[in-house]
Amino acid sequence: MINVGVFGYGTVGSGVVEVLSENSDVIARKVGDKVCVKSILDLRDFPGDPFEDRIVHDVNLVVNDPEISIICETMGGVGAAYKFTVMALEAGKSVCTSNKELVAMHGPELLKLAEDHNCSYKFEASVGGGIPILRPLQNAITADRILKLTGIVNGTTNYMLTKMTNEAADFATVLKEAQEMGYAELHPEADTEGLDAGRKLAILSSLVYGKTVKSEDIPTEGISGVSLRDIKYAEALGRKIKLLAKYEDSDNGAYACVAPFMVAKENPLYNVDDVFNAILVRGNMLGDAMFYGKGAGKLPTASAVCSDVVECACNLGKNVPCDWKDEDVKFTGFSKSVKRFFVRTAHPFARDSVLNTFEGAKLIDAGFADELGFVTAPMSEEEFKNAVTLFGKEVNFIRFED
Amino acid sequence: MINVGVFGYGTVGSGVVEVLSENSDVIARKVGDKVCVKSILDLRDFPGDPFEDRIVHDVNLVVNDPEISIICETMGGVGAAYKFTVMALEAGKSVCTSNKELVAMHGPELLKLAEDHNCSYKFEASVGGGIPILRPLQNAITADRILKLTGIVNGTTNYMLTKMTNEAADFATVLKEAQEMGYAELHPEADTEGLDAGRKLAILSSLVYGKTVKSEDIPTEGISGVSLRDIKYAEALGRKIKLLAKYEDSDNGAYACVAPFMVAKENPLYNVDDVFNAILVRGNMLGDAMFYGKGAGKLPTASAVCSDVVECACNLGKNVPCDWKDEDVKFTGFSKSVKRFFVRTAHPFARDSVLNTFEGAKLIDAGFADELGFVTAPMSEEEFKNAVTLFGKEVNFIRFED
Repeated sequence: MINVGVFGYGTVGSGVVEVLSENSDVIARKVGDKVCVKSILDLRDFPGDPFEDRIVHDVNLVVNDPEISIICETMGGVGAAYKFTVMALEAGKSVCTSNKELVAMHGPELLKLAEDHNCSYKFEASVGGGIPILRPLQNAITADRILKLTGIVNGTTNYMLTKMTNEAADFATVLKEAQEMGYAELHPEADTEGLDAGRKLAILSSLVYGKTVKSEDIPTEGISGVSLRDIKYAEALGRKIKLLAKYEDSDNGAYACVAPFMVAKENPLYNVDDVFNAILVRGNMLGDAMFYGKGAGKLPTASAVCSDVVECACNLGKNVPCDWKDEDVKFTGFSKSVKRFFVRTAHPFARDSVLNTFEGAKLIDAGFADELGFVTAPMSEEEFKNAVTLFGKEVNFIRFED
Repeated sequence: MINVGVFGYGTVGSGVVEVLSENSDVIARKVGDKVCVKSILDLRDFPGDPFEDRIVHDVNLVVNDPEISIICETMGGVGAAYKFTVMALEAGKSVCTSNKELVAMHGPELLKLAEDHNCSYKFEASVGGGIPILRPLQNAITADRILKLTGIVNGTTNYMLTKMTNEAADFATVLKEAQEMGYAELHPEADTEGLDAGRKLAILSSLVYGKTVKSEDIPTEGISGVSLRDIKYAEALGRKIKLLAKYEDSDNGAYACVAPFMVAKENPLYNVDDVFNAILVRGNMLGDAMFYGKGAGKLPTASAVCSDVVECACNLGKNVPCDWKDEDVKFTGFSKSVKRFFVRTAHPFARDSVLNTFEGAKLIDAGFADELGFVTAPMSEEEFKNAVTLFGKEVNFIRFED
């Protein structure tokens, strides 16, 4: 029998306990042994809970328990979760987590610690919830050079943008509804300002690159600036606005960024709506492959954590290697990356300026007489930023993704 | 250095050689050693080819070469390919293949042979071309009970159905075009009659079940009976006709089948058009996850073969286990499986009969006055087959997939 400890009996933690007990036969078949939850660490008591007798309040009871070999860290945060993860790994116990913040901040350090103690640090659930993406990226797409990776990795903002599009509701209205439904937090900035997507992209691009991409180095824009007018223009262009987390390795150098994009109908991400997530990976031989599913939620996320438990259980006493070195990499390609831009401006001299400054631009009519909308020819971020200064502050723009 | 032999220098075989040489640095980083093509077995010579000097005509030169540890079998067929695969595995060389026919016919026997000789038999490329699907199914979705698996796994028929839908062209016209473009074979029955999809489904459901599902036991219908009228009705219903390979484990027992279905707009497979493939997997905890990409083509398929090479190279001298026992399983659930059916009939008494015999049926108007179209309430295959006899032979039907 293989014993598991769970740190944090909240939404994901209780999901992990549910998956391990409900699917114990499936898991036993994969592992070749039974996998059981022995201890659950939480500050609270859970009177009446079927696992009440496994609740403990002292982390030492778990990390010093020689019968426990795998820990699921489902606490969240980077304080106690970090400390307890270090303790567990130092005790030779593998740790499986859904904690993207901790992975983005301390991933390679914890991976090294696991390697040094013949155990593993696994975090499939930290990106894309239930969607298998990190494992395919590391173990399946292994003969390709990854040229590009484009993801809708935040369900809250995708739900909001879908609702804005389908119901012509504005950001504030949709945010309020999302909060009432529990899809958005009371302080929604981590989602709406793109920080959550940035952390996930940091993890994805670190795995692609094999070195640490820090989320604070990723240019990040959220969706709070996306207005109903932008939605209307996107419709007129046959596109949808999506918050994309994007990594690209182009001739001008690699870059990663998070921003709202107007996605073309031909792009498979165009059809990814509501709370769904998807990650589109382009390999130099494979072409495009997309991984789609529920990016959040108790059981999908717990399913991913438990798939890591299965891998650790099949590799007890051994380190499952991960190609992510503790060495920072700074991408330099963003300002030189080339794309088209949708622009709208109420600047009085816009019409003349556009044709002079933005060669090849196409005017777009979405029925707004008080401003000018247009799409630029392909140009670099740098060129665009310089050119667009001519409108002063009276300008909004959204990048194109084809 | 790890040396590879290639059996068959056709489309996929030359793709494998291209991937291994073009991406040698990426692959070396994953494997921790260089991976090189040492011998290529083919009946033909290839004067002027950059790998001309590696061409051999005698299989013994490859299987008896102690320097070669991995073979890529990209010959196709079940004659020489079977014999040579057995020779390679018996010599302790791992075999990676794109040969779905051989895997569907001899998979578990070859897996056992590999196990007995401390090497591996791998076949990621046999289903979904470049899409990573077998590996995620075996290594990533490991904590879930797979309730359902629905795939568009044949690019030729998907291309044809997409063209019939978008251009209102009939089956014969579209087939001729597909043949001219090289998407369909001169003898297209393996694609159009669903046999290719059946083989891939046999592999997928064998891996889900852990025992052998024989493709000849899978009820299989192709798309040659799909008419332009069916396409029009599908449009009127807001659906698209897709050839689905479907495994489901329902209360009435598991079943697998291949047939054209009318797929609902809400289903992520609805948007999978042209030559693209996708496999939708439903886990009892995960919910739905979809894997999408190019299901065929030289480089995508070769990319998948080479991902197997990487795995074998990382596990030299060891068997990479595969949970597929050499034990046949017969599914019994098909006749009891419940779904809705679209039916059209020119039978003179149809209108009265429909309302009496098909309780809850809904009439559908797609503008054809000389026949009656309707959708049944959910009913089992058995009930439907019995009820529909009342129209004699003057009937066409297509199943619903929601």
